[in-house]
Amino acid sequence: MPLAMNREVFITCAVTGSGGTQDRSPHVPRSPAQIAESAIAAAKAGAAVVHCHVRDAETGKPARDPALYREVTERIRDSATDVVLNLTAGMGGDLLFDGTENMNRMSARSDMAGAAERVAHVVECRPEICTLDCGTMNFAEADYVMVNTPGMLRDMAARMVASGVRIEIEAFDTGHLWFARQLAEEGIIPDPVLVQLCMGVPWGAPDDLNTFMAMVNNVPKHWHWSAFALGRHQMPYVAASVLAGGNVRVGLEDNLWLDKGVLATNAQLVERAVTVISNMGARVLTPAEVRAKLKLEKRAPVAK
Amino acid sequence: MPLAMNREVFITCAVTGSGGTQDRSPHVPRSPAQIAESAIAAAKAGAAVVHCHVRDAETGKPARDPALYREVTERIRDSATDVVLNLTAGMGGDLLFDGTENMNRMSARSDMAGAAERVAHVVECRPEICTLDCGTMNFAEADYVMVNTPGMLRDMAARMVASGVRIEIEAFDTGHLWFARQLAEEGIIPDPVLVQLCMGVPWGAPDDLNTFMAMVNNVPKHWHWSAFALGRHQMPYVAASVLAGGNVRVGLEDNLWLDKGVLATNAQLVERAVTVISNMGARVLTPAEVRAKLKLEKRAPVAK
Amino acid sequence: MPLAMNREVFITCAVTGSGGTQDRSPHVPRSPAQIAESAIAAAKAGAAVVHCHVRDAETGKPARDPALYREVTERIRDSATDVVLNLTAGMGGDLLFDGTENMNRMSARSDMAGAAERVAHVVECRPEICTLDCGTMNFAEADYVMVNTPGMLRDMAARMVASGVRIEIEAFDTGHLWFARQLAEEGIIPDPVLVQLCMGVPWGAPDDLNTFMAMVNNVPKHWHWSAFALGRHQMPYVAASVLAGGNVRVGLEDNLWLDKGVLATNAQLVERAVTVISNMGARVLTPAEVRAKLKLEKRAPVAK
Amino acid sequence: MPLAMNREVFITCAVTGSGGTQDRSPHVPRSPAQIAESAIAAAKAGAAVVHCHVRDAETGKPARDPALYREVTERIRDSATDVVLNLTAGMGGDLLFDGTENMNRMSARSDMAGAAERVAHVVECRPEICTLDCGTMNFAEADYVMVNTPGMLRDMAARMVASGVRIEIEAFDTGHLWFARQLAEEGIIPDPVLVQLCMGVPWGAPDDLNTFMAMVNNVPKHWHWSAFALGRHQMPYVAASVLAGGNVRVGLEDNLWLDKGVLATNAQLVERAVTVISNMGARVLTPAEVRAKLKLEKRAPVAK
Repeated sequence: MPLAMNREVFITCAVTGSGGTQDRSPHVPRSPAQIAESAIAAAKAGAAVVHCHVRDAETGKPARDPALYREVTERIRDSATDVVLNLTAGMGGDLLFDGTENMNRMSARSDMAGAAERVAHVVECRPEICTLDCGTMNFAEADYVMVNTPGMLRDMAARMVASGVRIEIEAFDTGHLWFARQLAEEGIIPDPVLVQLCMGVPWGAPDDLNTFMAMVNNVPKHWHWSAFALGRHQMPYVAASVLAGGNVRVGLEDNLWLDKGVLATNAQLVERAVTVISNMGARVLTPAEVRAKLKLEKRAPVAK
Repeated sequence: MPLAMNREVFITCAVTGSGGTQDRSPHVPRSPAQIAESAIAAAKAGAAVVHCHVRDAETGKPARDPALYREVTERIRDSATDVVLNLTAGMGGDLLFDGTENMNRMSARSDMAGAAERVAHVVECRPEICTLDCGTMNFAEADYVMVNTPGMLRDMAARMVASGVRIEIEAFDTGHLWFARQLAEEGIIPDPVLVQLCMGVPWGAPDDLNTFMAMVNNVPKHWHWSAFALGRHQMPYVAASVLAGGNVRVGLEDNLWLDKGVLATNAQLVERAVTVISNMGARVLTPAEVRAKLKLEKRAPVAK
Repeated sequence: MPLAMNREVFITCAVTGSGGTQDRSPHVPRSPAQIAESAIAAAKAGAAVVHCHVRDAETGKPARDPALYREVTERIRDSATDVVLNLTAGMGGDLLFDGTENMNRMSARSDMAGAAERVAHVVECRPEICTLDCGTMNFAEADYVMVNTPGMLRDMAARMVASGVRIEIEAFDTGHLWFARQLAEEGIIPDPVLVQLCMGVPWGAPDDLNTFMAMVNNVPKHWHWSAFALGRHQMPYVAASVLAGGNVRVGLEDNLWLDKGVLATNAQLVERAVTVISNMGARVLTPAEVRAKLKLEKRAPVAK
Repeated sequence: MPLAMNREVFITCAVTGSGGTQDRSPHVPRSPAQIAESAIAAAKAGAAVVHCHVRDAETGKPARDPALYREVTERIRDSATDVVLNLTAGMGGDLLFDGTENMNRMSARSDMAGAAERVAHVVECRPEICTLDCGTMNFAEADYVMVNTPGMLRDMAARMVASGVRIEIEAFDTGHLWFARQLAEEGIIPDPVLVQLCMGVPWGAPDDLNTFMAMVNNVPKHWHWSAFALGRHQMPYVAASVLAGGNVRVGLEDNLWLDKGVLATNAQLVERAVTVISNMGARVLTPAEVRAKLKLEKRAPVAK
C-alpha cells in the first residue's frame, strides 16, 4: 500500500540486439571483440548483467553462430571485469511471408530453427542467464512474426534448465506473462523466477502506465522482475520500473540516443541509469549481489 | 469519474465458432440450416447481432467454404427475424508445426490462405459486420499459431471496407488493440470503429479486472466496444463489460454451459445475458438501434 | 490472474440508514417494528446480514436511542427468521457549522457524542456485527462533516471487540482503507477482518472502476470485503463487487428505486441482487455460512 | 497509449510548511527573511514556483499572521530572482478534541478561522498562486482534523478568484479530486485549473502506484497537475509524476532528508529533482514559461 519501490536495483545492459541498427550508430558493436568490449565498458559503468546477441562481424547483420557466442563469452569471462553474462536465445524464430497471397509457404527470408539449434550456444557457453521470449507476435514495424509456440517454449526451457542456466522470461504482452506463469506452475521454470517486461515493442504491450501496472500487478510476488521500454522511453522506464518494484534494462539494443541528436554508447546509457536510480534513492547492485539474489553460479574463465 | 456504465447495451451471440466443441454439446450447430436456426433463436431471445462461423455439416469440423457462409446468410436474411449479421473472417490463418525440430516447414495440418481467399465470403455475402483478428499469437491450448500479420490485416481491412462491410476488430491482447489504433489512425478502418475485447483466451490477455481495465482505458473514447470471456467467466463478463461501458457477447463459441452440468443453447445464454443486463438497470438494444449506432446498412433478403 | 470473482457471496441489506429519505418513499421504515419487519422481509428474500440504523418512530428522523436499537434487536432475534444482525455505530459524529465565518464553534445542529455513548447500544445489544466508519470527511451534499478521529476509532474499536462484536470497517475513501490496515496491524481489529468499500458517497471515493480497483487492490488478501454504491449504481455495484471478489450490499439506505419511477422495498432490492448474483454464476450464502466465514457467534433470542 | 510522460516539467519547492519539523532540521526556515532566502535559493536551483507557509520567527511554530506573509512576499518580489509565488491558504482549519469523550466542544488547541480571515493574506499579498485544500480528513499522525467543508471551499475559492489569484487545488484523496471537479463544473474555479495530488499523507490517499494512477486517470485531460509524496518517497515521486504526465513538488515541507543521515536544504532537493527530471529526458520550465502555461500575471515588486 505504500509505494512498493525497489531500493536495491540491478541494471542489465542489452548491448547490441539484433535490430537493423548497425548502420544507424557507430557505437553498435558488431564483432565478438567489439561486443565484449562494449559489454565490459557497460559493466564498469554499473551494469551487473550484460545481455548479448551476436552479429556478423563485417556487415553487422544479426547472426546466431555458436562460435560467435563462444568468442563473446570467452572474451567477457577472460576480462578482469566481473559481470553476469546473459545470452539471448531469441534467434531462430523469425517467420516472414512474401506478400499477402502466398501464405502457405514461408518466405526464404525466414529464419526458423529447431529447439536444439536455438539453444545450442546456451548449452555450449553456459551463460549464467539466457532469455526465453515467451510467446508469438507480430514483431515491430517489419512484417515479421516472432514465433515461439508453447511446445517450443517448453522444449527450450527444459534444455536451458538442464544446462544449469537461469531463464529470463521475456514478456512482450500480458498473454506472454500468463504463459510464463503456466510454465512456472508446470515446474518447467524453477524458482527463483526472473521475468523481463518488454514494454512498447510493436505490436506487443504499449508502454502507457496503466498497461504497465496491469502487468506488474500480475507478476507473482516472489518473482524477480525487470522492465524496459524502447527509444526515448528507455530512461523514463528506468524510473518506472524502480518505482513499481523492479529492476532495469538499458542499452543500444533498445535505444541509440543519449540526448536529442547525441548518439549513445552502452556505458553512457548505463551511467545515466545509475544517475536516475541513485538520485531516486535506490542503490545499484553488484554482479555478486545479483548472483546471490538469483542463485546464479559464477562461471570460471576458460582454461587455456 | 462516476461509473461509466453502458445503459444501452447490444448483445452479440457468437453462435458456433470453430473450436473442437461440436462433439461436446449437441447444441453446437453444424450445418448452415442449424447455424441459421440457432442464430435466429438467439435473435429472438434478444441478440441484436449474430456472429457466425461455418462448419462441415456432417463432421462439425471448422470450414470456410463460401457456399456455406452464403447459405447461412440467406437463411438468416430470408427469415422473418430482424438481426444484424456478423461473419467471421478469422479462418485461414492457422499455422501448425510438426514437433519442435521441424520448424522450417509448416505442418500439413496448417490452414494458411491469402487475403483474397480469406475475405471471399465477406465480399460475396456482404454481412453488415465482419471480424478482423487484429494480431498474431499462440492460440489456446493447442500448439497452433493464429497468424495475422500487419500486412495481411491492412490488406483484409481494405477489402472489407471496399465491400461496405463494417469491421469488428478482435483484440486478444493489449498489443492487438494498439495495432487497431494504428489502423484507425492510418484511415484503413473508418469511423465508427468497433472493437471486441477478447479476454481470457490463452495465450492472449488474461481476464483479471486489472488487465481488462488497462485495455478499456486504452479504447479511444469515441469507439464502440464490446467484451467477452470464455467458459465460466462468460456471464460474469456480461456484467463486467456493461460496468466498464461496453457491449456484450455470449454464445456457444465461447462457452457451452448454462449451469454446472447443464449444457446451454445459444438462446438460453442470450436470455441469461438479458437478465443480467436488465437487472443491472440497462436496456438491451434492438437490431435497428445497433444499425443506427454503428451506421450499418440493412441488407435486403435475397431476391428469388 | 484469471478473474478473481467471488462465487460464494453474502448479501447485506442496509435497511433504513439515517439519510433524509423517510419522506421520499413510504417504504423507508421508521419505527423499530417497521425496521425489524423490513429487515426480516429482506432476510427472507436472501439477505444473510441486515444492517440497521434506527429512526424516530413518528418523524422518521435519524435517532440513536439505545432503547430503539434494543427493540429492533429483540424483534429480529425473536422472529423465526435466521439472519445476522449488523448495527450501525456511525451516529454521533455529525459536525456542522453555521455559515463560513463562525468556524470556532459547532453549530447547535451538530450531534457529537463521546466514544462510550456512541457504542452504548452495541455494548448493550451485542449484535453479531457493528460498523466503524473509518475516517473523517465532508459527507454528502449537506455541508456536514462526518467526524471519526484516529483516537476515537481506536477507542470505539476496542469497546466493540471487548463486547465480542465483529467490526465491519466502512471505508469511504482510499485513506480510510489505509487507516483500517493500520488498526489491523496494531492488533486493534482482530482477524477475520471485514471491510465495506463505500463507493460514490460525496465527497469520498467516486465509483468509477479505476478508483474501485485501486481500493480492491489494496484490500489485504486474507480480509473479507464487500462494496456498494449509491442510487442508480446500487445494482451495477452488486455485479462489480462480485466480479472483483467481494460481497454485496443493497437496501433503502443507499437507494430508493427499483426501476425508473418505481419505489423499491428492501425485499425487492435483495431479490434483484439475488437475481444478478445467481445469473452471474455465483451462489448466495446463508446466515449460517456467513457466521462460519466471519467467525460470528449466533445470539440467542431474548429470554422471556 | 504510449507513455504519456511530461517532457516540460515545472518544479514547485514547498519551502517550510507548517509541520513540527523546525526542531528536527536547522535548514527549516522560520523567519520571513529565512523563508524568503530559502525560497530564492530554491528558485536559483531550478524551482519555478515556491510554495510558502509562514512561521513564528523565534519558535518556528506555524503562524498565519498576514504581516508575516507580507514580509515573505515583499522579500521575494524585491529580490532579483524571478520566481512564481504560491502562498498557502491551508491554515486556520485545524480542529482538535480533548480525548474521546468530550466531543461536543472543540479543544482550545484548535485553530478554526472564518473564510475572510483564512484568505486575508491572499487578498492582501496577491500571490500568483495560492492553495486550496479541497476536503476534510484526519490529518497525519496527530489526532487532528483538517476541516474544509464544501461551503467553506466555495467561499474561499470565490475570494481567491476575485483577487486575481490562481488556485492550486490540493487533493489528498480521491474524494477531494471529485469535489475539485465539482467546483470546476460549477464555474467556481476557472480554467486553466491546477491541481496538486498529495500522496501518502496519513490518512489520505496512500502513495502506491495503483492509487496514484486511479487519481491521475481522474484528472481531466485539460487540467494542469503536479504530485508529491512524503519523506523518502519524495524523490521517487518526482519520477512518478513526470512519468504520469505531471509536474513535481519537492522541499522541506514534505521531506527533511537528502540521503540517509544527511539533512537537506531546499536548494539541494530542487537540484536533485532537476537531476532526476533531466536525466529522464524532460526539460525544467522557467517561471516565465509557467506563467504562460497557467496564465499567471507577474506581480511587480512593492513600490517604495
